[in-house]
Amino acid sequence: MATRIGSYTLRLDKAPSIAGFASVASKKESEGPMAAYIDLLCEDSTFGETSWEKAESRMQKDAVNKALEKGGLSTTQIQYLFAGDLLNQCISSTYGLRDLGVPFLGLYGACSTMAESLSLAALFVEGGFAQRCLAVTSSHFCSAERQFRFPLEYGGQRTPTSQWTVTGSGACVVGEQSGPPFVRAVTVGTIEDMGIKDINNMGAAMAPAAAMTLKHFFEDTNTNPSNYDLILTGDLGLVGSRMLTQLMEESGYSISQAHQDCGLMIYDRESQDVHAGGSGCGCSAVVLCSRILQELQQGQLRDVLFIATGALMSTTSVQQGESIPSIAHLLHLSHLPGPDMGAGQ
Amino acid sequence: MATRIGSYTLRLDKAPSIAGFASVASKKESEGPMAAYIDLLCEDSTFGETSWEKAESRMQKDAVNKALEKGGLSTTQIQYLFAGDLLNQCISSTYGLRDLGVPFLGLYGACSTMAESLSLAALFVEGGFAQRCLAVTSSHFCSAERQFRFPLEYGGQRTPTSQWTVTGSGACVVGEQSGPPFVRAVTVGTIEDMGIKDINNMGAAMAPAAAMTLKHFFEDTNTNPSNYDLILTGDLGLVGSRMLTQLMEESGYSISQAHQDCGLMIYDRESQDVHAGGSGCGCSAVVLCSRILQELQQGQLRDVLFIATGALMSTTSVQQGESIPSIAHLLHLSHLPGPDMGAGQ
Repeated sequence: MATRIGSYTLRLDKAPSIAGFASVASKKESEGPMAAYIDLLCEDSTFGETSWEKAESRMQKDAVNKALEKGGLSTTQIQYLFAGDLLNQCISSTYGLRDLGVPFLGLYGACSTMAESLSLAALFVEGGFAQRCLAVTSSHFCSAERQFRFPLEYGGQRTPTSQWTVTGSGACVVGEQSGPPFVRAVTVGTIEDMGIKDINNMGAAMAPAAAMTLKHFFEDTNTNPSNYDLILTGDLGLVGSRMLTQLMEESGYSISQAHQDCGLMIYDRESQDVHAGGSGCGCSAVVLCSRILQELQQGQLRDVLFIATGALMSTTSVQQGESIPSIAHLLHLSHLPGPDMGAGQ
Repeated sequence: MATRIGSYTLRLDKAPSIAGFASVASKKESEGPMAAYIDLLCEDSTFGETSWEKAESRMQKDAVNKALEKGGLSTTQIQYLFAGDLLNQCISSTYGLRDLGVPFLGLYGACSTMAESLSLAALFVEGGFAQRCLAVTSSHFCSAERQFRFPLEYGGQRTPTSQWTVTGSGACVVGEQSGPPFVRAVTVGTIEDMGIKDINNMGAAMAPAAAMTLKHFFEDTNTNPSNYDLILTGDLGLVGSRMLTQLMEESGYSISQAHQDCGLMIYDRESQDVHAGGSGCGCSAVVLCSRILQELQQGQLRDVLFIATGALMSTTSVQQGESIPSIAHLLHLSHLPGPDMGAGQ
């Protein structure tokens, strides 16, 4: 049974396990620092398909199949599938996963989807609704560029605060408690909107949501940043990460020792020309489902707060002059299922 | 605790209550057969806002506030909010609900969203994750037409199988068991795709998903259509409803006595020129959150299967020659919290 702690956090007393996980990515990611940890790297970003959208669907399917394979599982052992992505009407997920025959719950959380899907998968296992659930998401640079920005052929110039959408997918099977890593707690985010309207500065739009969710979690659990090896945000990039550190400082929490951002880990900003870093649902999904979960499994990492962030605008809302609301969902992932750790959780 | 029955169904042993519900709609709906049951009817489909998209956001906000008011509740008593809609990146929900400060889980289930959100809200209460959750969705004829079809100004001709997107929103508060109506069971749908490619015949694309979910439910619970007063589909319309009846007949279930479709209830097809009927997330949301829940509350209806259906394509997938995958989620809603009813559930 999950126990509510404070106003926003659920402690998962049964501590479900991540029983299988896998990541898929493409050429640019294969040249970055995560390459050695990624399961499937395809140089050709079409993945053999006839459109970027179909390529993205293909990545989700491959990530799911690889996660099942690594967990020694088949689709018949999965009761629910939680998935979503950035494309209009979430077609990467629906087309990519339509053949699986697993009950499907579609999500839209923008780049927070890895945390949203993983939270719901873990809660369904915790609540006894399922023995095993799948969580999956993806993004693709080419499908995102043409949907949200410009056709690639246009060759638009990018601003220094812009981020590079990761071409990749990550999938996790969450099951009843077996080995590490374990899901220990979930904090669902509230929508925050500080009035940022610059579509090329998503990190700044999302930092307040990450700060709010982290603050809720620390207050609810009576813990602080020093209790965790790693506080891992999804895709704040350089600008958003600086803002988050500052916002947390203002709330009395110093996170700089433990904080890293998937958007700054997946590419080498010096050599890969990605401006403020990586972004997209695939960014946090690939980093989590490669290096982070491997290190949590093996014990090099002990306690990780994973906070994926999403910017909840559309091209229509931006054209109508609206600001960018954002959200961040948090999971406490651990090498141990319990007992209470650190200062009180 | 929920109990898994068969392969696809969860029986909610605590039978959470729908503790508040409300519906909002506009002019065309005010001229249809549901008008007397709808809480807020605004003749002006802009709802006083400056765009159709903002009008749709406004409807969600109004539906949520009215559902809370009718349940004698405030946002501080709600732990989670489940919402989604048809617009790209679900902006009706994110912009409409961003000020509430309630932890938010965004969904994309196309026109199945009322059933998806209500299922998750009920399961969160059943699992002890929350005392109360909100489920809400919407659609707007004008925002849907310009996103999925043509600008209204173009005056495109509609085919006989086409359906009319409902301008409306429905919201439910699900809480721990109090009075009727009660949520007794949930069957999450699988994605079905029979190869239909006609974007103007959504009913046909969605009927196989509704048939599959209904079949799963009847098999899992060992019940049959005669155990229910009403089998209510979301927006199959005339064509899809005929297909569903036929598909169920082929599986050995005769549903014609109990079956009705929200798309055929919300408008008067004779006088309102809506071709094959109503559609959109708002279609099943408005019919459910007006007449159906009122009659379940008062006991005129005893046992209802609510199956909202969604077509999971986008304009991009259709332009790329893809068929239309679809999904249907089912809830058993009842005037009584138990005990076992009918032939075995």
